[in-house]
Amino acid sequence: MFDAVIVGGGIIGHSISYHLNKSGIHSAVIEKGQSGKKATRAAAGMLGVHTENEAPDLFHHFCLMSRNIYTSLSEELLELTGIDIGLSSFGMYQGALTAQQKEKLLVKEASFSNLKWLEGEQLKSRIPWLTESVIGALYMGEDGHVEPSHVCEAFKRGALLHGGELFEDSTVLDIEQSKDSFNIQIENEILKAGKVIIASGSESGRWFEKTGMQNPIVPTKGECFSVDDGRIGLKETLFFENFYAVPKRDGRLIIGATSKSFDSSAAVTAGGISSLMNNVFAVLPELTEAPLLDYWSGIRPGTVDGRPIIGEHPYLSGIYFATGHYRNGILLAPATGQLMRDIIKEGNNNVYGDLLSPGRLLRKGENMYEPSS
Amino acid sequence: MFDAVIVGGGIIGHSISYHLNKSGIHSAVIEKGQSGKKATRAAAGMLGVHTENEAPDLFHHFCLMSRNIYTSLSEELLELTGIDIGLSSFGMYQGALTAQQKEKLLVKEASFSNLKWLEGEQLKSRIPWLTESVIGALYMGEDGHVEPSHVCEAFKRGALLHGGELFEDSTVLDIEQSKDSFNIQIENEILKAGKVIIASGSESGRWFEKTGMQNPIVPTKGECFSVDDGRIGLKETLFFENFYAVPKRDGRLIIGATSKSFDSSAAVTAGGISSLMNNVFAVLPELTEAPLLDYWSGIRPGTVDGRPIIGEHPYLSGIYFATGHYRNGILLAPATGQLMRDIIKEGNNNVYGDLLSPGRLLRKGENMYEPSS
Amino acid sequence: MFDAVIVGGGIIGHSISYHLNKSGIHSAVIEKGQSGKKATRAAAGMLGVHTENEAPDLFHHFCLMSRNIYTSLSEELLELTGIDIGLSSFGMYQGALTAQQKEKLLVKEASFSNLKWLEGEQLKSRIPWLTESVIGALYMGEDGHVEPSHVCEAFKRGALLHGGELFEDSTVLDIEQSKDSFNIQIENEILKAGKVIIASGSESGRWFEKTGMQNPIVPTKGECFSVDDGRIGLKETLFFENFYAVPKRDGRLIIGATSKSFDSSAAVTAGGISSLMNNVFAVLPELTEAPLLDYWSGIRPGTVDGRPIIGEHPYLSGIYFATGHYRNGILLAPATGQLMRDIIKEGNNNVYGDLLSPGRLLRKGENMYEPSS
Amino acid sequence: MFDAVIVGGGIIGHSISYHLNKSGIHSAVIEKGQSGKKATRAAAGMLGVHTENEAPDLFHHFCLMSRNIYTSLSEELLELTGIDIGLSSFGMYQGALTAQQKEKLLVKEASFSNLKWLEGEQLKSRIPWLTESVIGALYMGEDGHVEPSHVCEAFKRGALLHGGELFEDSTVLDIEQSKDSFNIQIENEILKAGKVIIASGSESGRWFEKTGMQNPIVPTKGECFSVDDGRIGLKETLFFENFYAVPKRDGRLIIGATSKSFDSSAAVTAGGISSLMNNVFAVLPELTEAPLLDYWSGIRPGTVDGRPIIGEHPYLSGIYFATGHYRNGILLAPATGQLMRDIIKEGNNNVYGDLLSPGRLLRKGENMYEPSS
Repeated sequence: MFDAVIVGGGIIGHSISYHLNKSGIHSAVIEKGQSGKKATRAAAGMLGVHTENEAPDLFHHFCLMSRNIYTSLSEELLELTGIDIGLSSFGMYQGALTAQQKEKLLVKEASFSNLKWLEGEQLKSRIPWLTESVIGALYMGEDGHVEPSHVCEAFKRGALLHGGELFEDSTVLDIEQSKDSFNIQIENEILKAGKVIIASGSESGRWFEKTGMQNPIVPTKGECFSVDDGRIGLKETLFFENFYAVPKRDGRLIIGATSKSFDSSAAVTAGGISSLMNNVFAVLPELTEAPLLDYWSGIRPGTVDGRPIIGEHPYLSGIYFATGHYRNGILLAPATGQLMRDIIKEGNNNVYGDLLSPGRLLRKGENMYEPSS
Repeated sequence: MFDAVIVGGGIIGHSISYHLNKSGIHSAVIEKGQSGKKATRAAAGMLGVHTENEAPDLFHHFCLMSRNIYTSLSEELLELTGIDIGLSSFGMYQGALTAQQKEKLLVKEASFSNLKWLEGEQLKSRIPWLTESVIGALYMGEDGHVEPSHVCEAFKRGALLHGGELFEDSTVLDIEQSKDSFNIQIENEILKAGKVIIASGSESGRWFEKTGMQNPIVPTKGECFSVDDGRIGLKETLFFENFYAVPKRDGRLIIGATSKSFDSSAAVTAGGISSLMNNVFAVLPELTEAPLLDYWSGIRPGTVDGRPIIGEHPYLSGIYFATGHYRNGILLAPATGQLMRDIIKEGNNNVYGDLLSPGRLLRKGENMYEPSS
Repeated sequence: MFDAVIVGGGIIGHSISYHLNKSGIHSAVIEKGQSGKKATRAAAGMLGVHTENEAPDLFHHFCLMSRNIYTSLSEELLELTGIDIGLSSFGMYQGALTAQQKEKLLVKEASFSNLKWLEGEQLKSRIPWLTESVIGALYMGEDGHVEPSHVCEAFKRGALLHGGELFEDSTVLDIEQSKDSFNIQIENEILKAGKVIIASGSESGRWFEKTGMQNPIVPTKGECFSVDDGRIGLKETLFFENFYAVPKRDGRLIIGATSKSFDSSAAVTAGGISSLMNNVFAVLPELTEAPLLDYWSGIRPGTVDGRPIIGEHPYLSGIYFATGHYRNGILLAPATGQLMRDIIKEGNNNVYGDLLSPGRLLRKGENMYEPSS
Repeated sequence: MFDAVIVGGGIIGHSISYHLNKSGIHSAVIEKGQSGKKATRAAAGMLGVHTENEAPDLFHHFCLMSRNIYTSLSEELLELTGIDIGLSSFGMYQGALTAQQKEKLLVKEASFSNLKWLEGEQLKSRIPWLTESVIGALYMGEDGHVEPSHVCEAFKRGALLHGGELFEDSTVLDIEQSKDSFNIQIENEILKAGKVIIASGSESGRWFEKTGMQNPIVPTKGECFSVDDGRIGLKETLFFENFYAVPKRDGRLIIGATSKSFDSSAAVTAGGISSLMNNVFAVLPELTEAPLLDYWSGIRPGTVDGRPIIGEHPYLSGIYFATGHYRNGILLAPATGQLMRDIIKEGNNNVYGDLLSPGRLLRKGENMYEPSS
């Protein structure tokens, strides 16, 4: 009998497990394959607080808080588990290729403190490899990146060291409510838990349907490739409308990402990689000579309204969701883990109100759901 | 004391070793790394007798003979070694995108028997995935392909079964002549041989220089990628001016190849793969959706006059070359092995005269070489 | 609306689809990942008719028929799809290390025609690398092997060319009966079919439970590794009680396999590989020097009584099973495909009676099942 | 014209290049393949100052200094290049399985400060996974490890940023002295340099021979494998007589290493991995269940007297060696780079005298060498 069972062993599930077990809530993660090998591993790990937000609103606050937690987590997890999460803080540039893009970035600069617009020439003095087509960039000096699979592994081991449990290679066949608890049926076993948290990313949709809600998840394939960055030696992340380039701390430069809605296939298509290459070469032509290292894909959990879904089921007590992070799963993993811990310990009242709650998906008067019989 | 030592363990070296040992000439191959892991492994394995020739001349005869030997070799090597060389005989199409290309192919059709020009519509009825930009193709029904690394492995094992020897992970540091034989110095040993055959592909150049000749080798990098051909299901090879597509018998479709002269670097560049993709997508747009499987490169041994160099050194008796096959090394491996066997057994007179001989590289009156002091 | 939908895109599912579509029964395969990437790919591909049988009974007949079908399939699929299934017919040796093992093999020799016992010395003259501990072996000259992933790919492409359809990256969430047909719910779609065939290997268990039967599937992990066989050059397969060695037509030697019941984890354990190595080195010590190439695992679908389950559900008309092939899935794929075709076209009467039928699992008077409400 | 050319682009060559260029000595590295892909990449990266030394002598001082440099280098290289060298400082345990081993470790404890012997029970309280066969261990709290390929990449990029140059995929064919400088012939170019530094690891031998010395290099193959350490979660390195286990900061546990003198082959043998597995399972039986991740090999440059060779050629001015580091190349790379810089700037007098000098290899009265004619 667990206090909570978390369905899904990606970075979100293991962050929740870490934070729950650390605060004494005995929890287990159930993962159908191996932990962190799906969308988590596919992510570049950008902590793009200011590429993902246009104004300092509540969602920005959630992002910012999450990014800041990484600083202390980095020390804490290294000490506890021996795993280095690869936190980099060289900052990001969001580049503009058109006057319109520049206009938007100048508005953004004015909206936040700590961002700084650089005209083309200033930018070229810092990154001489950019073509003239780049008319400037907004510098976000505090937004860096982490190594997603290391973060997930550190959360996983940290949770185990705090008494958590882990069931890998285990598909959840069914979840049934019985009085005050839940029976979670996996292939050769039934687990019992006081609460169930759905954190299975792009595969979460079926659990919304099973619990009487419409499926809000939009599986969105992303394809990436990596090159050896030796000739260029970027240190900061570059972010453009149709590609990004993240220089990792081991010398790889990750180029991402396509975005294909309602595509759950594992294949990395030749056309996907080709279009990314054409986009990046237009801005960084030196990369044509860079040695190709690898390519991969992941299925991100998009949502119908573009925001994550974190909180208790609107009318089924004890069922929680922590999913729908689209391309912000790595950035938001720490804050999601802490928010879920707080909700489970202290109830559903929190500053984010309907911003993230599953209940927001029940739109008034539209009768979007039928409680399951 | 070997009758012959062959420097280089690619498909050429092992074909020679196989044919020599089979006819009782005790031979050893020296390979600095592992056999067949360089240009051999990188090749798509096309037996493009008629893509590589414009007219039925002596070089065409050499190509044709080599392709034909593969049919009997396939049985012989399978029986002897258990290795299947993957011979496919579904034929090739050489496509035309312009009137000029068509004109050239019609001339070619007239020059050879067994080739057949297909107008665009006929072609589309056979391969419906081609765009309208393809105005027709020349069908070469008897030209297929093999699996190059399997051929090399089968030659290697066949040579060993016929009494041959093999030294892998062994760099040849020096070759010295002593009376009637040669001392071949490898790292911790000196081998003695009556004859030395240089078959080290793109790395053969140094041995021309060491023996008083100008270096005729032009290392030429080629980059390829492969996709899963499941959706299209090509059976015949497609050959265009800026790419080819070879459907292998295990379901992979190999797309090749860039051609970068005087480039010996191992890297597969992002730009090289990107340009190939753009070329193939223009003709086979369905391939944008094909799953990317792999990418690789190899360094082909081009030559200054575009022909292989097979035969005895023009004035140093006992030194032979079998190199410079550019992109025809797989096609020509069987005939090269047999020709070297014949030259070593019966002397330098053969039908190819100066076409392939090292001596042709000594142009009259130009004093291109200085015997080494 | 399909005539039949097959759940599971391994070699069994695609063989069924091939045989159904070829005979005009319009069928689709649904595969949750990519075709042939699980147990199919993990198999060594032995056609071990006589290692898997002790006497010429009905199951032996099924195995023998399936092996023989491969001969004609090889030509048929190559012609149709361009894929070579890698059929090898160099035969197998089942070796004995103890007098007891020898005794059993002598009984087997007497039970079948075409098998031949070889004493230790005869055997050593054929395979000189074996240690003295091998006291002899039974030679099974007609039992060879195929390349499992090629077979599956050829069936897949062949089925598509015969009008079949394929849904990959598609998890079947539910199957519901509605009058005369079935609704098969995948993530973003509902397929309709007249019949449903469960061919999902080690993951078939849930469909037995869903349809009111006890789960007869015993997921059984197997771990393998491969080496470069260049030094030894085996052509025949060796089969011992605690390992087998299969020389593939590309030069790899596959060593298998551990057998861990009720283990569905994907991991290849260090201890599993180590135990296989210790077993094989005791008999073939030369392999200590062989270069290690790869290692992998697969989950085979064992069953409670050790036999496959092929046929219609005992009381739910229109639901069929073709699963539980344990380590004989490659051997039995052709015969399973043909048997399912015959059952669907001509009904449940066939020579195998209760040997393979799902109904046999309902033991008399034991009330093993409850029809689902 | 370079001030210095370094032959060999492993961690030693790039450390030297980094230190030279940083202090204004314009230098280039020539690497026949890609930087850091041979012995450097194969190393586990232990900074085993106290596993590699028995007493606080001059060689220990060199090791200790090198380890200490890593601390400042880690910051310096991260800032300069963006590469994190992966420095870990969780310490090492050198374990004892016999009374004799314990005795030796107690002597070692007495010889150094900062080492601490732990009896079996104390050790088990820290690392409960060890078997009873471990009777205790010496704790070396300041000896950690780095990520060798990251160090090499950071040195490489750092050198380039300080004005250095790099020629990859370039084999040095010959080195000739001409007056005050050297001509270094690579395939299509001749480089000129004031000094030449041989840093080509296990392949350095030929340059000793070319310069009139006996070859002191003993190529020594080492084979390793890695597992997923999730279940055990080691943080400290374990060092035993017949294996070591290094927990890397990304969660991999590296097990090493075999040691095969005069073996330059690239193959990872099945027997090599098997023997390592048997050794480690005897002490850490839990690892039988650990998922196998990878395996690899490298050729370490051993020497005839077991010590590195760092310094100027005994009688050919301008030729330097920095090689022969056996299994201490990663540990000693920083100190080697600094020592070479000091020798080149300030001459051959240094505290290490004959300990490391090439001249020590000319033993008195033995006439070990003949100046080349």
